[in-house]
Amino acid sequence: MFDTIIIGTGPAGISAALTLKQLNINFLWIGNKNLSYKINTAEKIRNYPGLNQVSGKEMKEAFLKQINDMDIKITEAQVTGVYDLSSHYAVLCGQDTYEAKSIVLGLGVESIKPILDEVELLGQGVSYCATCDGFLYKNKEITVVSHSKEFEHEVKYLASLASKVNYIALYKDIDMDLSNVNVIKGVPQKIEKNKATKKMELHMKGSVIESDGIFMLKAAISPAVLVPGIEAKDGHIVVDRLMNTNLKGVVAAGDCTGRPYQYAKAVGEGNVAAHSIVNYLNNLK
Amino acid sequence: MFDTIIIGTGPAGISAALTLKQLNINFLWIGNKNLSYKINTAEKIRNYPGLNQVSGKEMKEAFLKQINDMDIKITEAQVTGVYDLSSHYAVLCGQDTYEAKSIVLGLGVESIKPILDEVELLGQGVSYCATCDGFLYKNKEITVVSHSKEFEHEVKYLASLASKVNYIALYKDIDMDLSNVNVIKGVPQKIEKNKATKKMELHMKGSVIESDGIFMLKAAISPAVLVPGIEAKDGHIVVDRLMNTNLKGVVAAGDCTGRPYQYAKAVGEGNVAAHSIVNYLNNLK
Repeated sequence: MFDTIIIGTGPAGISAALTLKQLNINFLWIGNKNLSYKINTAEKIRNYPGLNQVSGKEMKEAFLKQINDMDIKITEAQVTGVYDLSSHYAVLCGQDTYEAKSIVLGLGVESIKPILDEVELLGQGVSYCATCDGFLYKNKEITVVSHSKEFEHEVKYLASLASKVNYIALYKDIDMDLSNVNVIKGVPQKIEKNKATKKMELHMKGSVIESDGIFMLKAAISPAVLVPGIEAKDGHIVVDRLMNTNLKGVVAAGDCTGRPYQYAKAVGEGNVAAHSIVNYLNNLK
Repeated sequence: MFDTIIIGTGPAGISAALTLKQLNINFLWIGNKNLSYKINTAEKIRNYPGLNQVSGKEMKEAFLKQINDMDIKITEAQVTGVYDLSSHYAVLCGQDTYEAKSIVLGLGVESIKPILDEVELLGQGVSYCATCDGFLYKNKEITVVSHSKEFEHEVKYLASLASKVNYIALYKDIDMDLSNVNVIKGVPQKIEKNKATKKMELHMKGSVIESDGIFMLKAAISPAVLVPGIEAKDGHIVVDRLMNTNLKGVVAAGDCTGRPYQYAKAVGEGNVAAHSIVNYLNNLK
């Protein structure tokens, strides 16, 4: 069992990881080896102290080098749920489960609101995780919704399994030319499950797309969906000044705790969150 | 009148200044052109994201370059008081007064507790500010207490005015060879004012040093002393998640708001404080 699991490789997670490593805590860090799509695509960052007028790419390189030099590893996975087992926590990543005494949530923020019945039908034909659930749809027809180019590789992965993909790409500069992917324009409004046929229906303005399953690909998932029992308000996790949530041993940091959505703020909160975890672990002893 | 005055040139003040500059706020920034003694003397910083295994000097150089490149100026002064004038705030720096609609406090933290009656006798023979009050003691005898080498240039300045300086240097590696400075060992315990002679008495373990005035030189001054009316607890300014204090339009950030005393935490809070100032100013309109 790990002392703590950090979820998220944005600035909050990075800051928490550096501090926990320095303090010799045994942790697992789950996220993306490329860190954060938001950082990667930032044009120019002027107000992050110490990195002078950098591009997002330059910031990412600086972070990555520091992480490597401190010999910190990132486990690439998508977390599908965090569960309170009363004595400790279980983090589910598709088929894999990791356990820890405490949790650092650096989830980012979901700026895109769920559509009607999306959350209600999660796990019943709706999925947020291509790598977790893709295999369920081998040789079947699926529908995929994405607001960002960053998920195109996941769409391609799904297309390698499914017989046909209806791809609702809600961004510009779409780069998708697989023969079994049908790029569709339009705005999704609602999901329904047809009780008779068991097919999933994505209701668009003026049309309905029917398939065996729907993937909603997102950079961040609503905290309440990911961590049952966590107190959230207006889509943000409620924390105190020490980044403690309502769940014992669970801290949160960065955009998921609220505005301003800023690198410096996330980095500061990640640091405080790490110190609170150390205090929590010390009190367990 | 300024929109805001930032007090302090540590990481919290730096972060607030960068963000307020980026947001086009008209501010005055009071502190030290050398930024922060604490940063300057840090040996190795490993957990500040983006600056990889830097020395304090390297961190300072990175901060200074960014400040210069963004054309931000520092006004060198020591703040002696911040006063609520109900419609706005006045910041006193010795003989100079600056006014602003709002205040960002990045005061750092005073790790050295005041001795008995030090605070009570402030302005009545006890001073925290060499450059503000030094001229009052021209050709007189004074006593100076300092816990850090960083104040030696202030002691030398005082020695250029006073006839004699009794210097209680509470640190190692003292570099002070002026003929009118008498370096004394010992631990100050209490200050008294002799009502008959008007002389100031610094009571040490086993001895009493009498002079015309006492300077207690410190990197940070207790918030309650500097900002009358501000809510503090255990020596830290009480703030909410948006860094608001109990005083309208006054925010605080960094070590002065509490532990952990960390660069990343201070930088994060400075950023949030700057955003809260912008919201406050917008609501004034």
